[in-house]
Amino acid sequence: MALNRKLRYGMVGGGPGAFIGNVHRMAASLDGTMELVAGAFSSDPAKSLAQGKELALASDRCYASFSDMAEKEAAREDGIDFVSIVTPNHMHFPVAKTFLEAGFHVVCDKPMTNTLEDAEELCNLVKKHDLVFALTHNYTGYPMVKQARAMVQEGKIGTVRKIVVEYPQGWLATPLERSGHKQADWRTDPKRAGAGALGDIGSHAENLARYVTGLKLEEICADITSFVEGRVIDDDANILVHYQGGAKGVLHASQISIGEENNLNIRVHGETGSLQWFQEHPNWLYYRELEGPEQVFKRGNEYLSAAAQRNTRLPSGHPEAFLEAFANIYLNAGRTIAACQAGETPNSNDLDFPSVQDGAVGVHFILTALKSGKVRKWVDARYIPPA
Amino acid sequence: MALNRKLRYGMVGGGPGAFIGNVHRMAASLDGTMELVAGAFSSDPAKSLAQGKELALASDRCYASFSDMAEKEAAREDGIDFVSIVTPNHMHFPVAKTFLEAGFHVVCDKPMTNTLEDAEELCNLVKKHDLVFALTHNYTGYPMVKQARAMVQEGKIGTVRKIVVEYPQGWLATPLERSGHKQADWRTDPKRAGAGALGDIGSHAENLARYVTGLKLEEICADITSFVEGRVIDDDANILVHYQGGAKGVLHASQISIGEENNLNIRVHGETGSLQWFQEHPNWLYYRELEGPEQVFKRGNEYLSAAAQRNTRLPSGHPEAFLEAFANIYLNAGRTIAACQAGETPNSNDLDFPSVQDGAVGVHFILTALKSGKVRKWVDARYIPPA
Amino acid sequence: MALNRKLRYGMVGGGPGAFIGNVHRMAASLDGTMELVAGAFSSDPAKSLAQGKELALASDRCYASFSDMAEKEAAREDGIDFVSIVTPNHMHFPVAKTFLEAGFHVVCDKPMTNTLEDAEELCNLVKKHDLVFALTHNYTGYPMVKQARAMVQEGKIGTVRKIVVEYPQGWLATPLERSGHKQADWRTDPKRAGAGALGDIGSHAENLARYVTGLKLEEICADITSFVEGRVIDDDANILVHYQGGAKGVLHASQISIGEENNLNIRVHGETGSLQWFQEHPNWLYYRELEGPEQVFKRGNEYLSAAAQRNTRLPSGHPEAFLEAFANIYLNAGRTIAACQAGETPNSNDLDFPSVQDGAVGVHFILTALKSGKVRKWVDARYIPPA
Amino acid sequence: MALNRKLRYGMVGGGPGAFIGNVHRMAASLDGTMELVAGAFSSDPAKSLAQGKELALASDRCYASFSDMAEKEAAREDGIDFVSIVTPNHMHFPVAKTFLEAGFHVVCDKPMTNTLEDAEELCNLVKKHDLVFALTHNYTGYPMVKQARAMVQEGKIGTVRKIVVEYPQGWLATPLERSGHKQADWRTDPKRAGAGALGDIGSHAENLARYVTGLKLEEICADITSFVEGRVIDDDANILVHYQGGAKGVLHASQISIGEENNLNIRVHGETGSLQWFQEHPNWLYYRELEGPEQVFKRGNEYLSAAAQRNTRLPSGHPEAFLEAFANIYLNAGRTIAACQAGETPNSNDLDFPSVQDGAVGVHFILTALKSGKVRKWVDARYIPPA
Repeated sequence: MALNRKLRYGMVGGGPGAFIGNVHRMAASLDGTMELVAGAFSSDPAKSLAQGKELALASDRCYASFSDMAEKEAAREDGIDFVSIVTPNHMHFPVAKTFLEAGFHVVCDKPMTNTLEDAEELCNLVKKHDLVFALTHNYTGYPMVKQARAMVQEGKIGTVRKIVVEYPQGWLATPLERSGHKQADWRTDPKRAGAGALGDIGSHAENLARYVTGLKLEEICADITSFVEGRVIDDDANILVHYQGGAKGVLHASQISIGEENNLNIRVHGETGSLQWFQEHPNWLYYRELEGPEQVFKRGNEYLSAAAQRNTRLPSGHPEAFLEAFANIYLNAGRTIAACQAGETPNSNDLDFPSVQDGAVGVHFILTALKSGKVRKWVDARYIPPA
Repeated sequence: MALNRKLRYGMVGGGPGAFIGNVHRMAASLDGTMELVAGAFSSDPAKSLAQGKELALASDRCYASFSDMAEKEAAREDGIDFVSIVTPNHMHFPVAKTFLEAGFHVVCDKPMTNTLEDAEELCNLVKKHDLVFALTHNYTGYPMVKQARAMVQEGKIGTVRKIVVEYPQGWLATPLERSGHKQADWRTDPKRAGAGALGDIGSHAENLARYVTGLKLEEICADITSFVEGRVIDDDANILVHYQGGAKGVLHASQISIGEENNLNIRVHGETGSLQWFQEHPNWLYYRELEGPEQVFKRGNEYLSAAAQRNTRLPSGHPEAFLEAFANIYLNAGRTIAACQAGETPNSNDLDFPSVQDGAVGVHFILTALKSGKVRKWVDARYIPPA
Repeated sequence: MALNRKLRYGMVGGGPGAFIGNVHRMAASLDGTMELVAGAFSSDPAKSLAQGKELALASDRCYASFSDMAEKEAAREDGIDFVSIVTPNHMHFPVAKTFLEAGFHVVCDKPMTNTLEDAEELCNLVKKHDLVFALTHNYTGYPMVKQARAMVQEGKIGTVRKIVVEYPQGWLATPLERSGHKQADWRTDPKRAGAGALGDIGSHAENLARYVTGLKLEEICADITSFVEGRVIDDDANILVHYQGGAKGVLHASQISIGEENNLNIRVHGETGSLQWFQEHPNWLYYRELEGPEQVFKRGNEYLSAAAQRNTRLPSGHPEAFLEAFANIYLNAGRTIAACQAGETPNSNDLDFPSVQDGAVGVHFILTALKSGKVRKWVDARYIPPA
Repeated sequence: MALNRKLRYGMVGGGPGAFIGNVHRMAASLDGTMELVAGAFSSDPAKSLAQGKELALASDRCYASFSDMAEKEAAREDGIDFVSIVTPNHMHFPVAKTFLEAGFHVVCDKPMTNTLEDAEELCNLVKKHDLVFALTHNYTGYPMVKQARAMVQEGKIGTVRKIVVEYPQGWLATPLERSGHKQADWRTDPKRAGAGALGDIGSHAENLARYVTGLKLEEICADITSFVEGRVIDDDANILVHYQGGAKGVLHASQISIGEENNLNIRVHGETGSLQWFQEHPNWLYYRELEGPEQVFKRGNEYLSAAAQRNTRLPSGHPEAFLEAFANIYLNAGRTIAACQAGETPNSNDLDFPSVQDGAVGVHFILTALKSGKVRKWVDARYIPPA
C-alpha cells in the first residue's frame, strides 16, 4: 500500500443491535489494512458513545450526528479517509451526499437510494468530486462468482440464453415486524426501506446476474406480493426477465419462503455451456459443457482465473465464506482509496467493486419491477446511469 | 388380485428405436402382475412383427395397425385387458378413442392430446363406456411425491403461498432434430408433438404441482421461446403462475439448459412450513417448519405416510428411482382394471394414478400458456374438465 | 436371445415376509426375458403353495422341498432353466449343490456359504457340470461401478494407493432380533447367517473394492464387535487392509450406525487420480485428477465406457437404482444361461456377473477377518479359489 | 472487555511465503479486539523487517530473534500481552518456553511439540507461571462442532459406540517437497515437522473426536505409510481405535488422497442417535435419531446450543467458515488473557479453547500411533497429561 499506513475510516449507523454494521466492521478489519477511528453510530448521542467505547474509539470521535462527523473529521489532520454508511436505506442518500461534498470517499450499503433522482445525484457528486464510491453488493465479492464472470467473458459458455437467479429467504414469513424485531421493523417500513424483498435482496439478484454475465435488462414482467397480513411492503417477487441481446430468464426473491435461509443462487445457460453457483456453498462453482462430465470448480486452486485467485485468502478446502466476500469489497475499494490518497493511479484489478452507477442501475430495477407489478404488464427496463 | 391371473395388455407404438415404449414395458413387467401379449408397435408391418418377436409375442398378435388390433383383440377369448399407448402425441387421441370404443381400458402417455376438443371427447368416452383411463404423468408415482402430497393434506405446511416448480433439460440445446435423432425429430415437430418443452415437460411440472398441493390454476403469464435457430416449436418456457385461493409461483421448463439432464423439482412454501423434492435424487424429501432443523424424509421408513409406504418396494437406503415410480402408475391402474374385469369395486387406494381429467387439465394448461406467451399478457387459466 | 423364448426359472426361499425373494423376482422380471414358473418358497407346504398362488404359478410347481423341486423340474420337458436361491445363508450350499448336481444353472444370494469347504465344493461342482453360477453381489451391477472399474483399467487414476470402502447401516442398533423381526432373527443367528455385519455387508464391501480395482487382499487386521447386548454375532467391523501390489486401505461395515440406511461407498485413490461412488446416489461417479476441477460422471451419457452403457436402461437424468443394478446380474447371467441352453458360446460381455470363485473369495475374506479379530493381529489374507 | 483497550500481540514466524502466519493474523484481526504490534517473523533480520513493514509495524518492534523480542517486549510499558507462535513445529517448544518464562501468555500452532518431554515441560511451565496457553486446533472453533459437543453432552445420542473420523488431503500426492514448495519442504522433513500426515492433520482428527465426545483413547492399532517415493515421513495413516469406556472406531488421515482438499469429517454413532459433520461444509450438522427423519442443524439458528450461538457472528444462511472458527480460538483465548491482564477471573465460557494439556495429549497420540505402526500391533494409548 503506497500510503504506508492503515486507512482510517468512520462509520455512520451500526449502533447497538444493528446487524450489518458489525458485518462491515469485521469485513474492514479482516486484512489489517484499515482501522475504524470514528463513528456516528446512532442519532442518540449516548448510544453512539456507548458503541464507540465498545469499539475502543476515542470519545471525541464518537459523534451524535453524521453531519457533525463529516465536519469535524474534515478538519482533523488525522481525519478519516472514507466513510462507511450502514444506516437504513432512506438515510443512505443524505449521508452519502454530505460526505461526498465534504470530500470523503464512501462505502455504502445497498440499495443505494430510495429514488432514482437521489441515485443519479450521487453519480454526479462522485464524478464532480472525483471520489471513490463502493456499494456493498457483497455477493459479487465471492471468488467463485468472479470465476463465473471470467468464464463467461472467456466464452466458456457461449452466448447466454437463459438466466435463472433466485434469492429466497424465509425470515419474514411471519409478521416479525410487529414483535419488536429491529431488523424486521425498518425493513418492512416503506418510508425507510423503500421496497421490501425486492429492494433488500431482489437488487442483489439483479446485480449478481449482471456482474456474472455483463447483460443489461431490456424488459421485465413482475408479480409482486405482500403475503403476510398487514404488511404493506412486498415480501415476494417473481419476475420474467428479458436481457438486451436476447437472453431471457427468471428472477425471483422472497422473504416468506420458510426454510430458506439466504439461498441466493444463479444458473446461467449459454449456447455451449452452463454455470451454477449457490451462495450457501460458495466455494464451489458448477460448469457443464455440451459434452462431457459436469465439472466442479473449487476455490483456491491454480486452475482458476486471475480474478478468482486475487480475491482469495485461504488454500483450497479451507472454506471461505460471507465475510471474506464482503471483505473483498473493502479490500479492493480500500486499495483504490489508498491510491487516490497517495495521488497514484488505482490498479485496474482493484477497481473490481460495485460502483455508484451499479447503485443507480439497481434502484432503477427496483422501481421498474414495482411499476410492472402494479400494472401487471411487461415494461421497458432499459436504463443508462449518468457516467 | 381378484382376477387370479396376470392382466394381459397390448401396446400401440414402442417400436424399434423408441425410448418410451421400453420404459412402459419395463414398468409394466416389474411387479409380475401383467404381461404384454399383443402389439401394434409400428405402422410398418415388418417392424411391428420384428419388435413383437424380440418381445417373444405370438406372430398373430403383432399387428400392423392399431385399429386391426382393437378389432381382433376384442374378438379373442384371451384378448387384452387394456391397451398401452406410447405413440407420438398426435396419435394418442385416435388410438385412445378406438380402444375405448372397443371397450378396452387405456394407459396413455402424456400430453394426452393436442387439442382441448380431443381431450374432452376422451373424458366423455371414458365416462360413457365406464372404463379405466390412466395417463402416465409418471413423476407423481414417486413415493416421496406422495409423501409431499400427504403432508400438504395433513396441514404440515399450512396454507400454500408460493410454489416454484422447475423442469430444466439440456438435450435440445442444439438442433438435434436435424441430425436424424428420432426422439428429437418428432418432439420438435408441431404436427406430431403439439407443443415443445411446454407440452413434453412443462405439463409434467403443472401436474406435479397440482398433485402435491391440490391447487388449480387461476391465471398465468408466460414467456415462451424457441432458442435454437430454425426450430419452430418452443424449447423454453418461463411462467408466472397464480393459483386459485391465492398461492403464487413460478413454473419454468426448458430443453436448452445445458448440463441439466432431467431436473424436475418442486418447492412448496406454506404459511407454516415448506417442502422440497428433486426428481434426480428422488428418495429424499426436505421439510422445514417455522422453527427447528430441516428434516430429511427418506423413502422406505415407517414414519412416512400410508400412501408413500404403499407405493414402495424396497427398504430404506436401497434406492428406488424412475422405473418404480412409473411402475406405480401401472400397478395402481392395473389393480383398478383387474377389479373392473372381476366385476368388483376398485380399492380407493388403487385409484392413485393420473386420470383422463388430469389429461384434459394438462392440455388446457399447455394451450393457455401458448396463448399467454403469444399475447404477452396474463390470461385466465381456470378450467374444469368434463366430469 | 438365441433361445427365442423366455428363460424359465424356479426359486428356493422367498416365501411370505422375506425381503430378498421379492427383490430377486422384480430384478428377474424387469426386462421381460425370464419368467418364474416354479418355487420351493418355504419348507412349510401350505406357505409355499400360498406364495406360489400369489405369484400366479401353477399349483403343481409349488414345491414343499427344494430337493423335490430339483427332481421334478429335471423331469419336465418345460422344466426350469435355472434356480434362484434366496434362502438364509446356511441353506445356500445344500440347495446349490442339489441343483448343480441335477444339472441346473444357479443364481445364488451372498455370502455363498458359511464354510470355505462348502464354497470350494461349489466351485468344483460348477466346473464339473459346466454350469453357469451367478452370485448376487448386486452392487457391482450398477453402471457407475462398471464405469469406475473401466476407468481404473484404462489407467485413469494410475496405480492404486489407497482404498476406503465403507458399508454402514443402522437397522440393527437395537436388539431387533428379540422383537420377532424375521430378517433380524436369522441374520443375527450364527447358525443360519454364519457371520453378522461382516458376512451380510462386509462381504459386499470387499467384493466392490475388488471389482473396481481388480486388487486381491494380502493381509488384514480386523476389529470385530458385537455392540448390542445379548447379540452373539458381529454387528460392527473395522478392518485395516493391505492389497497385493502395495495398495492399502480401510474397510468398515456396521449395522449399529444409527441414521445410516444402506450407505455403501468407495473411494479409490491412485497415483494420478481418484474415484468416489455412493450407493445411495448411484447415478453419479466422482473423478479427480492431480490437476483441474472435479468431474462428475453421470449415468446414461455417451462419454461413459461401453460397460457402463451396456448395463443401462434409461437416459441420463432419469435415475436408475438398486433394482436395475440387481437386474443386471440376472440379465447378464440370463444371457449366458440362454447361450448355454442354446449350445452357443456366451458373449464375453455377458460374463460380467459375480462368479462362484468370487463367492469363495468372499467366504475366505469373512473367515479371515473373523480370525484376525479374534487374535487381534494382522493375518495373511491371500487366497486363490479353485479355478 | 475489562481492559478497555485492544490486546497487543507479537508473532514468531509467519514471514514472507508462510501460509499459517497470515491465517493467524486474519483470525486475530477479525473482531477488532487485538492488534499485532511486534514480530520476529523470520530469523533473517531483513525478512523480518520487511514483513513488519508490510504489516505497518514500527521498525523497532520487528525483531530478528524471538529471544530478543521476548526480552525487549517484556521491558516495554506498552509491550505485548501475548505471543502467537506460527513457526514450523520443531520451534514451538523453544519459543513457547522462552515467552512463558518471560511471563507472556501464548497462542501456539499445533502439533505442540515434537517430543512428549517438551510437551510436558510446557504443561509445567504454564502451571508454574499461571499463564494462558491456547493451542490452535482451530477446527474445534466451528460453531457446529460446538453444537455436536453440546448434543453429546446433553445425551442426544446416548452412549457413544462408534466414531469414524477422517482427514484426507491430496496435496502431497506427488513429491512436492522436491520442487521448492516451502510448505511441503518443512512439513515432510522429520527434523522440523516431527511426523507427517499424522502430526499435521491426524492430530486434528484425534482432537476433534475427543472434543466432540469427551472420550480418551485406550488403545490403537496403526498402519502408517509413506507412499511417495523418496519421502521419509508418513503421508498416510489408517488407525483402528478403542476409546476408554468401550467406544471403537476408525481414524484415518492422508495427504496422498488426490482430489481431497481438506476434508476433515466426523461421524459419531451412539446408542440412540448419530451426528455427522464435514469441515468443507461447516455450517451444517446432521443428526439422526433411532426413529424419524434426519435432521439438519444449521448454524445461526436459535434452536442451537448456547456454545454454538456464542461462537457465531453471522445470521443463518450467511455462511461462516475456516477463518471464523480460527478466530474463535483467538477470541476466547483473548478474552481469557484480557481477564488475566485485568486481574479478573476469566469467564468460564471463554475457556472454550484447546489447552496445553490438549497439546500434550496430541503429542502422545502421534508418538503412540507411530510406535503402533512400527510394531504392527495394538498398543496402549492411555495417557494423562500433567495437570
